Formats: sequence, structure tokens, C-alpha cells
Amino acid sequence: MPPRPAIPRPTAARVSLYLRELEVRLDRGQITVRSRELGDSLGFTDAQIRKDLRLLGLSGHPGVGYGIRDLLGRLRRLCGTDHECPVAIVGAGNIGRALLSYGRFETEGFRIAAVFDADEAKVGERLGRSTVRSMSELRDRVQRLGIRIGIVATPPESAQEAAERLVEAGVDGILNFAPRRLELPTGISVTEVDLSMSLVNLSLQIALSRMNRVEQAAPRTKRSPRTRPA
Amino acid sequence: MPPRPAIPRPTAARVSLYLRELEVRLDRGQITVRSRELGDSLGFTDAQIRKDLRLLGLSGHPGVGYGIRDLLGRLRRLCGTDHECPVAIVGAGNIGRALLSYGRFETEGFRIAAVFDADEAKVGERLGRSTVRSMSELRDRVQRLGIRIGIVATPPESAQEAAERLVEAGVDGILNFAPRRLELPTGISVTEVDLSMSLVNLSLQIALSRMNRVEQAAPRTKRSPRTRPA
Repeated sequence: MPPRPAIPRPTAARVSLYLRELEVRLDRGQITVRSRELGDSLGFTDAQIRKDLRLLGLSGHPGVGYGIRDLLGRLRRLCGTDHECPVAIVGAGNIGRALLSYGRFETEGFRIAAVFDADEAKVGERLGRSTVRSMSELRDRVQRLGIRIGIVATPPESAQEAAERLVEAGVDGILNFAPRRLELPTGISVTEVDLSMSLVNLSLQIALSRMNRVEQAAPRTKRSPRTRPA
Repeated sequence: MPPRPAIPRPTAARVSLYLRELEVRLDRGQITVRSRELGDSLGFTDAQIRKDLRLLGLSGHPGVGYGIRDLLGRLRRLCGTDHECPVAIVGAGNIGRALLSYGRFETEGFRIAAVFDADEAKVGERLGRSTVRSMSELRDRVQRLGIRIGIVATPPESAQEAAERLVEAGVDGILNFAPRRLELPTGISVTEVDLSMSLVNLSLQIALSRMNRVEQAAPRTKRSPRTRPA
């Protein structure tokens, strides 16, 4: 593998924003995009966008911008989502069911290939295209289906065990919806999804937009608001 | 209101990360925190942390750091979550139900005060401490309960109408779980929650950590990995 600069964490965190914005533009029929357009949509400077994409090994054409389809393909290859990626869910409760009927996973290259639940009453139930399986089948099915990503959608008190079972079965990463911090071996990637944080972000946005309105109403204020609705 | 620098969007986006990290540390019994500790946990430089907090109007004590309780209080006041904030959910399906049983909203200062559904078969059903109400009651209840934030948890085809009903009733912001972009009047804050993006982020993390492992194994590589599991 040729030497390649490590990708700073903030840049990595912006990749999913780029992906979504590019998908929206491609859907609308747009072919190329300039860094300034991406920056305006996402609230970053165009210099930041160019720097991020350069760090990701992507460059645009001066005066034309980036080919959207090309950029999407390269970002997906980087994420490993350019081919179908099977995932397993542990927990067939409300969150698990919501995820099973969530159309966007497939758009992004993921397929929910297996669902497990510790509650034997749920085992055998059909959920969409999946059948809920017993936890005793987890290791074998995860290995046989080549699943490398597990989603923990259990109650908080079962989250740690669910994650450990997935790791023992060989997954490389866990997406954790349970409000409980997981302790897992080094080398296992974990993304915590805290649904309340999006509500905090919205609340802050509202507060800032109210301040900006107050400031805009005051004649001595010259600045333009820099925060705005997403 | 005294003049106050506008808060850049990337700083605003980091506020919820700071909140969560500070809550974890407070839970562990920590009293003060240095910018370097926050930076190490969150993957930013300590200079970035200090700059963000300064932009938010917060300063630490040299050699001591920031008082965690004080910092949390000020960040919550900024977000408007220092007092209980009632929210309404439209959609009593899987996502709505998952949100209703999600303990972390209350920790963050939110209370789900009303739930609405267009399906008359669901109206009257008890969900936790709430009763599902008809859409015809939405405007009146939202106004009477002083609700300023609405959560759209409907199927995609109903999301736009649900959001419009909430806006007509007077909310300032919408948290949208439906995979459909909303068109709303200027001045209404919208946060889109795209559950697939957390899976993309995890997938990228796994890919980067694999690259880092490969690079660490190669003797000529001198850099240390800068991305790591959350």
C-alpha cells in the first residue's frame, strides 16, 4: 500500500455529510459540483471542503469542480460501501423494527442480513425480509454470512453482552443504539448513536436563530448570521 | 442584548459532543476538566476546544481547566435545555415508540408531552406516559402545552404534511426522522436524522482503522494513527 496521509478525525466525520449532499445533488440531475456549492450547503468554507477532499485523495478540475458520480464512487470505496455490506441487528424491539423498515440503509450499500433477539417469544417472527433468530445462532450465522458490522438495538442492560457476542462472532465494528457505553477490545470500532443529541442540536439551532433574529433587528448589528437551519 | 460574536456552524455542531462528554465525566465524579482532556476524548486539538468554548462565551481557569458543572450549566442554558422543554411527536410507529421509551431525552431536558398519529386505529392507545391523539387535536394541544419542538416520525410520504401541521401550530423547530427532505418556511430550524449515516461513519472508521493497522505493520511508516474508534 503506498504511503498515504492519515485522515484527521474531523475530516472523517464530514465524509457522511459529503455523501448525503452529493446524493441529493445527483438525484436532482446535477453532474458536477464546485467546492463553494458544497460549502454553502453544508456550512463550511470552500477551502475546508477542498482540503478535506484532498486529504481523502480526491481532487477537482479547476473551473469545473468535481464530477459528482466520480466523487460519490470514490467516497463509497473509501467507506467500503461500494459493494453490498451485510449487517446484523441484535434486538427486535422498536428500534430494531424501525431499522428493518428503514429504506436508506440499502441506498447506502448496507443489507440487514440477520436479526437476533434473546426473547424466545420473538424468535421465528418474520420482520420484513428477515426472520428473528435465537442468540444461540448468532455466531454461526454471522460467520457464515460474512457479516462484519453489528447493530446493538437492545435495552441498555443487555447491550454489553450483545456487543460481546457480536465481537466474538468476528464483527469489526458495532453501531450502538442502546444508551449505554460499551467496553470492547481495542481494534473494534464503535459508533454510539445518541438520539437525544440531535434534539440538543436542534434546540441550540433554534436558540441561535432566535439570537440572530434579535441581533438583526438591532440597527447597530452589522454581521450576517452564520448559523442557520440545516 | 449585548453584542456577541455569531457562533460558527462547526462550533455549534460540536456543542452536543461537549455536553455528552462532560456528562460522562460528571457521572464518573470528575469536577474539573482541561481542554487537553476534552480534546483527547473527542479527537480535537486542545486549541480547538479552547477556541470553541471562547466563542460560546466560556473561559477556563489557567492551570485548573473548566468546572464541569459550571460548563454543563452554561452549555445547557445556551441550548435552552436548562429548563424542561416539552416536545411533540407525530407518528406512533416503530420510531415514535422507540423515542417514547428512550430514557436519554429526559436526561437532556426534554419531555415528550404529546404524541399524534393520523391512523385513527392508534388514537387513544397508551404509550408509556402518553396517549396517542388524533391529528385534529394537534394545533390546540401544541399551543396549550407551549410546545416549540416537533419530531416527525411518520412514513416518508406523510412527513411533509406532519411538519407543516407542526409549524402551523407554532413550533420553532423540527427533528425529522423520516427519510424525506422537508420544505419549510425560512426561520424554522430543521435537523434531519439520517440513521444510515451513522452506519456509513462506522464503516469508514473500520476502513481507516484497517488501513492504519496495515500502515503500522509496515516498518517505513512513522505516523501514528489519528483516527480511532469513538
